[in-house]
Order: sequence, then structure tokens, then C-alpha cells
Amino acid sequence: MAHIDLGLDEREYPGITGPLKFRPETAAHLNALAEALLHAPHPTFPAGERELIAAYVSGLNECTFCHTSHAAFAAEQINGGMSLVSAACADPDDAPLSDRMRALLVIAASVQRGGRQVTLAQADAARASGATDLEIHDTVLIAAAFCMFNRYVDGLGTVLPDDPSVYAHRARTIAAQGYL
Amino acid sequence: MAHIDLGLDEREYPGITGPLKFRPETAAHLNALAEALLHAPHPTFPAGERELIAAYVSGLNECTFCHTSHAAFAAEQINGGMSLVSAACADPDDAPLSDRMRALLVIAASVQRGGRQVTLAQADAARASGATDLEIHDTVLIAAAFCMFNRYVDGLGTVLPDDPSVYAHRARTIAAQGYL
Repeated sequence: MAHIDLGLDEREYPGITGPLKFRPETAAHLNALAEALLHAPHPTFPAGERELIAAYVSGLNECTFCHTSHAAFAAEQINGGMSLVSAACADPDDAPLSDRMRALLVIAASVQRGGRQVTLAQADAARASGATDLEIHDTVLIAAAFCMFNRYVDGLGTVLPDDPSVYAHRARTIAAQGYL
Repeated sequence: MAHIDLGLDEREYPGITGPLKFRPETAAHLNALAEALLHAPHPTFPAGERELIAAYVSGLNECTFCHTSHAAFAAEQINGGMSLVSAACADPDDAPLSDRMRALLVIAASVQRGGRQVTLAQADAARASGATDLEIHDTVLIAAAFCMFNRYVDGLGTVLPDDPSVYAHRARTIAAQGYL
């Protein structure tokens, strides 16, 4: 049970969906931020790769709801599907990723530990492997945003869905329609 | 110098203002979230207290730009001014705060360490000292949001303002007009 009375059936609104329903004034901006970061058209950064960063950081933060959700959203939209996503989240060095994606995940892991952990050398390495400054910016902000979303979901003690098939079902909706 | 080329004079756009200018598509939602959390009218939670939570968490995250900014924004809007804000950020147990505010800062500090650190007992203690569930929700989300903002500012290696008087100047603008 959540730490506050969300005024709804928590089994029907697992994870972040309960707090989003509880506080629509902030939910509108959180959803719009997720849309801009993870689903909106991007000149170079595929949605599946952006979702992989969200899944990876959520795993580092041990947020089961967000990790499982965004792993499913990434798998739905990336070549390699869930086996690539699982391998990347377990150990990026050991997963069949591009050098560019591996360098961006290094930056994401630094952000998860704390903003001051990111170094110019990490950004230079990402650029050397083909990442653009916009991709580096978005990687930092996606990783930072999931340090927020993960804390929001677990800090309020929200519950997990009873039926794990909701993640894959929601993945198809997110891939097709996004977060709005 | 920032880790990416922000395409602007960083001295003119210190801290978060550079990345916000660099990426207006995400800035719109970040500003709207800050407005909803910190400045919009609230049934019970004064803006100065909400800014104090932002300043406190930014201090725990060692984000100099955000901590100094939101300490100034809190001081501008709270009884007790900067001496109260400084004391609360240094040690809430030793500062002249209400039991309610002290209990909310305990929750904020837990969120800063990680979402799973927040306990039902901490929420119960906040309620017992007079906090509403909406205040507890907003405390969790403000603390979580500053775990994002702090990482965004420092993860991109942004610079501090040359002139420290900009914090107090900006505090008057924020108190009067908010973040939009």
C-alpha cells in the first residue's frame, strides 16, 4: 500500500499511474517531459535507444516498476528486442551495443551516481564514437529524469501490477502513441 | 566550460539557464514542472517552504548552483529569511522549524538517498505533526525533481555565475513572477 491515500484502487493504478492520477497538475508536465525525452521525433536518437537509457538507469536505481516498464518499451522499439535490452542493462560492456551507445550508457551511469560524476573525458569519448552534443544532452537529461521518476514511484511506496503482462501491453501503446 | 557546446556565452547563461536555452523543447516542461511544484498557488503549502525543500535537497546533492539559487528563492519567501534557510539546510534538527516541516525534510532526505529509503513510518510521522497527504506527495516529488535538476546542471558541467548577486536578483523575480 502506498505511503499516502491516493484516493483510488491501487491495483488498478500500479507504479507511477497512481500518483499521476492523484496530482494531475504535476502529471501533465511529467508526461510531457517523458514524451519530449523518449518518444518525440529526434534528428538522430531512436526512441528505442532513449528508452534503453531509461531502463538502464531505473535498474541502477532498483526501481522495479520503472525498470520493467521501460525495458519493455525499449524492447518494443529496438533491434535485438528484450535479449539486447536485458544484456545491456545487466552489463553494457558485455552486450552487443555500438561504441556510441556504450559511451552514452557510461554517461548515464555517472549521472545516476551524481551530476558531478560526469566528466569531460566521458563526453569526449561519446563524441569520438559518433554521439552528437544533442544526444549527450538528452542522455544526461533522460538519466537525470529517471533519477526523479524512480524516486517518485518508490518514495511514495506505490505497488506493482498483479499481472506482469501489463508491461508488454503498455509497451505497444507507448510505441504507437507515446506518453500524452 | 560545459561538457557540450551549448552554442551561447556560458557566462551570460550560468547553471541551468544554458541547457534550458540549448534545448527549448524540454525546457518548456522543466519550467512548467518547477512552476507547479514551487510557485503555483497551493491549498496549504507556502512557496517558501517548498523552495526550502528544493534548497535542502540541492545541498545534499552538492549542486552549488541549484542550492544557492533555491536558498535565495526560499529566503525571499519565508519568515526567518536566509538565517532560517541556512540553519535548516545545515541541520534541520537544530533549526527553528515546525515539527511538520522537520518531518517533511526527513522525507526529502530519504528521497535524496533513494526512493526505497522513504518509509511509511516517516509519512506517518509527518501526518502526526500536521502534514497533509498532498504535502507529503509534493515533498516527495520536489525532492525527486531536484535529484533531476541537480544532475542536469552538474552532469553537463555548467558554470557558476561570475557575480553572486544574480541569485538574490533572480529570487525577487521568481517570488513575484514564478518560473514561466
